Amino acid sequence: MGGDRVKEGDAVLLYGGRRTYLIRAVERGGKYSFNEGVVRADDIIGRSYGEEVVTHLGVRFKLVRPTLLDIVYRAFARRTQVIYPKDAAFIILKCGIGPGSRVVEAGTGSGYLTALLAYFVRPSGTVYTYEVRSEFAEVARRNLRLAGLLDYVVIKEKDVRDGIEERDVDAVVLDMADAWLVVGHAFGALRSGGTLACFLPTVNQVEKVVIEAVRAGFVAVEAVELLLRSYKVKAGETRPELRMVGHTGYLVFARKP
Amino acid sequence: MGGDRVKEGDAVLLYGGRRTYLIRAVERGGKYSFNEGVVRADDIIGRSYGEEVVTHLGVRFKLVRPTLLDIVYRAFARRTQVIYPKDAAFIILKCGIGPGSRVVEAGTGSGYLTALLAYFVRPSGTVYTYEVRSEFAEVARRNLRLAGLLDYVVIKEKDVRDGIEERDVDAVVLDMADAWLVVGHAFGALRSGGTLACFLPTVNQVEKVVIEAVRAGFVAVEAVELLLRSYKVKAGETRPELRMVGHTGYLVFARKP
Amino acid sequence: MGGDRVKEGDAVLLYGGRRTYLIRAVERGGKYSFNEGVVRADDIIGRSYGEEVVTHLGVRFKLVRPTLLDIVYRAFARRTQVIYPKDAAFIILKCGIGPGSRVVEAGTGSGYLTALLAYFVRPSGTVYTYEVRSEFAEVARRNLRLAGLLDYVVIKEKDVRDGIEERDVDAVVLDMADAWLVVGHAFGALRSGGTLACFLPTVNQVEKVVIEAVRAGFVAVEAVELLLRSYKVKAGETRPELRMVGHTGYLVFARKP
Amino acid sequence: MGGDRVKEGDAVLLYGGRRTYLIRAVERGGKYSFNEGVVRADDIIGRSYGEEVVTHLGVRFKLVRPTLLDIVYRAFARRTQVIYPKDAAFIILKCGIGPGSRVVEAGTGSGYLTALLAYFVRPSGTVYTYEVRSEFAEVARRNLRLAGLLDYVVIKEKDVRDGIEERDVDAVVLDMADAWLVVGHAFGALRSGGTLACFLPTVNQVEKVVIEAVRAGFVAVEAVELLLRSYKVKAGETRPELRMVGHTGYLVFARKP
Repeated sequence: MGGDRVKEGDAVLLYGGRRTYLIRAVERGGKYSFNEGVVRADDIIGRSYGEEVVTHLGVRFKLVRPTLLDIVYRAFARRTQVIYPKDAAFIILKCGIGPGSRVVEAGTGSGYLTALLAYFVRPSGTVYTYEVRSEFAEVARRNLRLAGLLDYVVIKEKDVRDGIEERDVDAVVLDMADAWLVVGHAFGALRSGGTLACFLPTVNQVEKVVIEAVRAGFVAVEAVELLLRSYKVKAGETRPELRMVGHTGYLVFARKP
Repeated sequence: MGGDRVKEGDAVLLYGGRRTYLIRAVERGGKYSFNEGVVRADDIIGRSYGEEVVTHLGVRFKLVRPTLLDIVYRAFARRTQVIYPKDAAFIILKCGIGPGSRVVEAGTGSGYLTALLAYFVRPSGTVYTYEVRSEFAEVARRNLRLAGLLDYVVIKEKDVRDGIEERDVDAVVLDMADAWLVVGHAFGALRSGGTLACFLPTVNQVEKVVIEAVRAGFVAVEAVELLLRSYKVKAGETRPELRMVGHTGYLVFARKP
Repeated sequence: MGGDRVKEGDAVLLYGGRRTYLIRAVERGGKYSFNEGVVRADDIIGRSYGEEVVTHLGVRFKLVRPTLLDIVYRAFARRTQVIYPKDAAFIILKCGIGPGSRVVEAGTGSGYLTALLAYFVRPSGTVYTYEVRSEFAEVARRNLRLAGLLDYVVIKEKDVRDGIEERDVDAVVLDMADAWLVVGHAFGALRSGGTLACFLPTVNQVEKVVIEAVRAGFVAVEAVELLLRSYKVKAGETRPELRMVGHTGYLVFARKP
Repeated sequence: MGGDRVKEGDAVLLYGGRRTYLIRAVERGGKYSFNEGVVRADDIIGRSYGEEVVTHLGVRFKLVRPTLLDIVYRAFARRTQVIYPKDAAFIILKCGIGPGSRVVEAGTGSGYLTALLAYFVRPSGTVYTYEVRSEFAEVARRNLRLAGLLDYVVIKEKDVRDGIEERDVDAVVLDMADAWLVVGHAFGALRSGGTLACFLPTVNQVEKVVIEAVRAGFVAVEAVELLLRSYKVKAGETRPELRMVGHTGYLVFARKP
């Protein structure tokens, strides 16, 4: 990997401090300022990935080549609450969202889940994402362009509660407060064997969506929840972390027969 | 979807009984026998997906067009214990295993996780899977061929503890008892920014792998566990299921800087 | 402990087989038949606690002197579903149910929770337990007498939804389907600082009880759930048990100001 | 309850602000200062329990008559980490620690668990608590006296690893880092049928204690963990709390045959 050095324009991850930082594109002469100090572009360009750089506060960071997903994770404006990786991952696998999949999503929000879905449907699939608030649609468009994933996404500034225009899609993914109003539209849009996935914060929403899904004709309707537990590992002193996230949301899955 | 009918040679899922069944390829004149009765191919071919078929025992099933993942889930011989979807999904997302990824996996076992990984790296990526027991390698080869995913997999009948031959791979995924013996090889095989993921049943394995990963130079080493809780949803009577799987395995992730 | 031998009339626990068995009162000449074989009273009487006895099937059991709680656990008819120890224990501590406490309980069921409460209020407290179905009241009376705890219990064959007659009690414990109908009565019965505890299987019941408790004037209203996870411990191979109980019930606590 | 008014010398709980406060003994002319403002004794004495008092910052609190357990919970110096109620409750029930029980405990720490155990063994039982650090023994003695529970406790300034002097006790409760060194002593101290309970933060301690308990001759050795999940209940918007305590400690139980 002797030739694997940071070039101008590269995205670079800085690992090893209290947090991890992303520089989207290193530019000659640039300075990058973080909570843990400032680093200069000229100290980064030409170094090998894996080497260290030191901030003016003396904090040491390793230079890491980011993946597309690193860019998605860190590039998105955190103004809206985003879905957790554990939940997004399970939705993607349960729906079989892979290369070539055609997926309808609502609502778009900042485009974070849209970007994850787009990542997996490349190079031949499409994500159709509905967002009724135009300011969010604009934010999502900018974020998706920065992440290099806009080519795989169609942003539709429409209220999904009025209907879904696509037909024979592989999956419909709903992350919205009143998802039960869209369950019937999802049934119409899905192909036989296609999957509906909903992310829902409250138990009451789960009840409404499940009842509506059964009524609409879906089969294999299931409601689940994933809990992530982190461990503090040390030789001879291993135990779970003292604090954990107690709840992100429930997931409802259903298949069109 | 008027033209969306079952043709000879199609794979078909039967939904709606106590269990779900897969017919891999419907053949004229065939009979398919399940716990819940027998269905005849001639009652299936030519019907629209979504319609019902009735077994000789009177159980009604809906005809569903399976996804590739349905075939993976059901086609694999369950002789070896397979990784749960929640764990596989989280590994795939944390490692960013998507279209074009190059992934090393060990051990292959029945090829179930191999097939999931192959599903996501299509069409331009490759899964290199190590399996020292040739009878397992053979089973996995047959399963992957049936699932139509063998083109994306290189099965290597070698002991991964002796070394990994690939370089600059995006991810190394280990599902084997003594994974800590392979952590150093994984470091050598990964590109900068690449991810190691291990699935480990016991706490003691977690301790060994984490200590070895830190020693090898990995950063962002984390040990987690996912718990899946299912709900029994009924209007006004919603509650978690009385039984749940208490443990599948721990997950360790680490990144090469 | 040389003098610590099994005497006629003693209760004896048999430990060490696949299950644990209780003989309520060993009688000369008696034979005790379990799934794992038959033991004769004459092989037990006069032996020291801690020694072994062998069934006619060759299974070895250690003789253990039971506690009062062992008798409660094993003596109660399991015809009704009983509350789990984890939940009963938390109710007892949160309500401060100890020696001298005056407690109202409904419904009685087989008397299992009644017996646990009675165990802790001895020697000077009282459990007032309401049960509208007289056949259950009769079963509970017999069970409590066998456990030696009937002196601390007043069984009331009344519908608690019609009102609670006691005043200034320390705690009201409700294990019944429509507990929200009794929340107002509980407020009237409790002393200042007294605690209401409800065991509720569904989320919908929790919602109703919490709303009703706040309306009735309770403070410190909280809804929680306890999950018990068991571990399989072996040197170098420790992990959680593969199966666990996913749900017993929710607990709601509230205090009268 | 017309006569149920706050008198001089009473302990009073203040409920209804962001936190709950305890005044151990209201004294004429006194002023009590909390984060949420100051209240004067003369505004409290003579008021009925259940009435409100207002701090100089305008925060309203209801006057609540505390239970003995309220005093235990709030009176203890929080300089040492204390065991959680869920864990203490389960230990008490599994060991059958009730009126008249004779219990050995180590280490004493601030005396918090000692006080809970003493609360339940009243009026005729005794808690023998070992604490090798005399400054802790002193703190615990003061706390137990304030809680009115010192009469039921014998504080022993000895290292429990050197041996337990009591015999035929009902339970031994260990909350100490190297509990496995005391397992053999516990076996000697317990009566037949008596229970050993250990509270242990790490998995490695669990492994050592379980192995040692089996070697010492204990039966029914089990290792468990309790997780407490809190809910945010609102009509139509019920969900688990976003944050939870991810780990307090593991519990190991074992019985002497």
